[in-house]
Amino acid sequence: MTEKPPSKYGENFSKWFDWVIEVAEIYDYGRYPVKGVGVWRPYGFKLRQLMLNIMRRLLDETGHEEVLLPLLIPENIFRKESEHVRGFEGEVLWVTRGGFEELDIKLALRPTSETAISYMESFWLKSYRQLPKKYYQVASIFRYETKATKPMLRVREVTTFKEAHTVHESFEDAERQVKEAIEIYSKFFDELGIPYLISKRPDWDKFAGALYSIAFDTLLPDGRALQIGTVHHLGQTFAKVFEVRIQKRDETIDYAWQTSYGISERVIASIIAIHGDERGLILPPNVAPIQIVIVPIPGKDIDETSRVLKESKKVYGDLKRSGFRVRFDDRMELRPVEKYFEWEIKGVPVRVEIGPKELAANTITLFRRDLMERIEVNRAKLIDEVEKLLNSITINLKERAWKWFREHIFRVSSIDEAKPIIENRQGIAEVPWCGKELCGLRMSDETGGRTLGSPINGEEPHGKSCVICGKPAITYMRIAKTY
Amino acid sequence: MTEKPPSKYGENFSKWFDWVIEVAEIYDYGRYPVKGVGVWRPYGFKLRQLMLNIMRRLLDETGHEEVLLPLLIPENIFRKESEHVRGFEGEVLWVTRGGFEELDIKLALRPTSETAISYMESFWLKSYRQLPKKYYQVASIFRYETKATKPMLRVREVTTFKEAHTVHESFEDAERQVKEAIEIYSKFFDELGIPYLISKRPDWDKFAGALYSIAFDTLLPDGRALQIGTVHHLGQTFAKVFEVRIQKRDETIDYAWQTSYGISERVIASIIAIHGDERGLILPPNVAPIQIVIVPIPGKDIDETSRVLKESKKVYGDLKRSGFRVRFDDRMELRPVEKYFEWEIKGVPVRVEIGPKELAANTITLFRRDLMERIEVNRAKLIDEVEKLLNSITINLKERAWKWFREHIFRVSSIDEAKPIIENRQGIAEVPWCGKELCGLRMSDETGGRTLGSPINGEEPHGKSCVICGKPAITYMRIAKTY
Repeated sequence: MTEKPPSKYGENFSKWFDWVIEVAEIYDYGRYPVKGVGVWRPYGFKLRQLMLNIMRRLLDETGHEEVLLPLLIPENIFRKESEHVRGFEGEVLWVTRGGFEELDIKLALRPTSETAISYMESFWLKSYRQLPKKYYQVASIFRYETKATKPMLRVREVTTFKEAHTVHESFEDAERQVKEAIEIYSKFFDELGIPYLISKRPDWDKFAGALYSIAFDTLLPDGRALQIGTVHHLGQTFAKVFEVRIQKRDETIDYAWQTSYGISERVIASIIAIHGDERGLILPPNVAPIQIVIVPIPGKDIDETSRVLKESKKVYGDLKRSGFRVRFDDRMELRPVEKYFEWEIKGVPVRVEIGPKELAANTITLFRRDLMERIEVNRAKLIDEVEKLLNSITINLKERAWKWFREHIFRVSSIDEAKPIIENRQGIAEVPWCGKELCGLRMSDETGGRTLGSPINGEEPHGKSCVICGKPAITYMRIAKTY
Repeated sequence: MTEKPPSKYGENFSKWFDWVIEVAEIYDYGRYPVKGVGVWRPYGFKLRQLMLNIMRRLLDETGHEEVLLPLLIPENIFRKESEHVRGFEGEVLWVTRGGFEELDIKLALRPTSETAISYMESFWLKSYRQLPKKYYQVASIFRYETKATKPMLRVREVTTFKEAHTVHESFEDAERQVKEAIEIYSKFFDELGIPYLISKRPDWDKFAGALYSIAFDTLLPDGRALQIGTVHHLGQTFAKVFEVRIQKRDETIDYAWQTSYGISERVIASIIAIHGDERGLILPPNVAPIQIVIVPIPGKDIDETSRVLKESKKVYGDLKRSGFRVRFDDRMELRPVEKYFEWEIKGVPVRVEIGPKELAANTITLFRRDLMERIEVNRAKLIDEVEKLLNSITINLKERAWKWFREHIFRVSSIDEAKPIIENRQGIAEVPWCGKELCGLRMSDETGGRTLGSPINGEEPHGKSCVICGKPAITYMRIAKTY
């Protein structure tokens, strides 16, 4: 079993993460005999499902429709868009054999589905009346990572890829969609209490085939930035190659405009990494597979214990009927403290403790996992108090995460100041930038970090100079060590 | 576009099926440039999701836990169980390249996951206290079919494979699990109104690696049987090979016992094929993405029409609040009859018609898709009447399906009687059988059908003789043309 590290911060992070996903039974990694793939265990699978439920709700509410595209993309289709191929070619897994035969045409395991869906859209979409059209799917994608793989963070089978693909009648409408996608993802990460910066990726680091790419980055406890969502304006790149042609309002025919945007299980990794502590997971109530666990405290004799159990069962029924995800831990062979330990590892937000003391006083003891604090509440007000407590936990987790995040973003005015921040993995440095590619590339070289891009809100470093060339800066460049 | 055939029965079936899945926008097949794979379109995806919801509920209620296993199985792991390999080897798709490199070890796209999960279970399960353990996953599996492929019915990417894998401390407990699985699947097909026979597959046709296999077969309108679910007692086959060793109650250590059972999108094909008619789909209310569509009938002037629209909107709100999946078709550029046509193709169970006539009489006209009949109901009783109507549709679809199914099962006493049933694809023939393999194989040869196996309820053909050898029969053998 993976050894428990003293904390999740700094150099300990990777060990802590491996430890917590194992002991909390989230994701089995490193034992399955293929590099870079993992297994979702039941508790982790539920967490994943609850995260996806939130995403699906946000997408469905905004008129997105779920589809399911094939895993396999024939080589000739995949190669049709040359920039896209160059971006992915080095990391595609290829099926070349079927049964005892060599295949005529190699089949790629999709690294993403722009080519597959554009191919289909050429059949499905003919008129502006059908637009905007917003599709999405949740599926596995594959990347033959040659760098060191990490559970959920850098894998060869990305099992939880949510990719949206939209089609529009104009550049502007696609741009509006980019904005909607940014809004959806902002809401999504807000609901999960995950802090983020939204950056326009530099031109030299955009999605293969896109006009431009917007990215959401968060920061893990080791001070490295993690890309957790991307939004691409695809222009007419794929529409032209796959002949997605649309009759427009003025009856002319033109290629459609497209966007795509995606998130992956890196979101789950972020929930785990950002909210957890040295005791294990701390799950936000909206994605906690178990929101409340009830632990009965045995009495001095069988009689008292049986009254405790009876009351615990009643409380369980009350909470269940109120719609909470609740577990009654009635295993009598374990002491309460052993149960506490187990459910703390699993990050259950609220623990209900009921013993002789509570029975006598007609109260319930509630324990909140995020602050490791107990409060006593009136039995009659239990449902309200639990509701309030869960809300308070949601808010606290989010605030705490943002506070730490903000403390690790440094706005500095020179490469000398930026360099130690990157090198020591203290977080993200923001430096004034003239906007030229050459200067951007040198920022990477001189700090050893990756350039994440610039704020999308147009914020300018008035009167400041580019940290490389000294000319007037028109924006900031964000730099960090990344995954 | 696929041409519309005159009916779904007999030789027309395949054409009808291709037509209906295209015009109802369920599943796009034959256009995507890989043989044997299809695309789930939004309406089809929702149907698929609703079907899976029912399955997940039945599994969750009985203590099954969902997991997600890797797609890729390394060749050496896959080859560990020799019988299993022989069963699947000819139809495995192999990944042999990653990026620009040849892989050291070929990776199979899972054709099923017994090997992958048994490998993991050897780490996860140690003691009888953890048993029985019931896992399942919903995922794509791959089979390199060399026969003619058919949408949903015989595909290379099975996108909707629900496979359960269970672990037990004894042969008997695994056998109990087989019974539970049969019960779950029976309930499942009953909820969908899909008729079935449950057969113990003959020994020469069981799952590769199983002690025995139980199968659910239904009958499609062309008179061919379709396997829609299987349940396998795996004995200790995989547990031995992958060393799933369990400490037992008596403290000895022994290999675990396993079962597995699966269904696929053939269930969706069955819903479509069995309930549909020459006008299109007829969906059971519990899986219909839209259960009720509201079509307003314009009045003689704008004023009257706007009163109709107002009332329609109100009805929409009422139905929505009552929890129905309802659509208000307020497209004013289409005539009501055009809308009728469209929603009949899509199989919406109930149509609500509201026009000046209904306004005047304070009634609503309800149309049921299964019988193509209208009834008028009191506006005030709408919710109750719709509820009643949906129930009645559910019951009618199921009864109608079972009636047709039973009419196409023929219990006969000789090969001469069985032969034309199989040859003319009239359904399933049941013939007395002595139980010997040689006689069973000859039944296939002489009728040109496939032997589905024998009833699991132990029913015997008292006093009858085996139709091949003439010796006393101990059971029936079911024979049919199959998919």
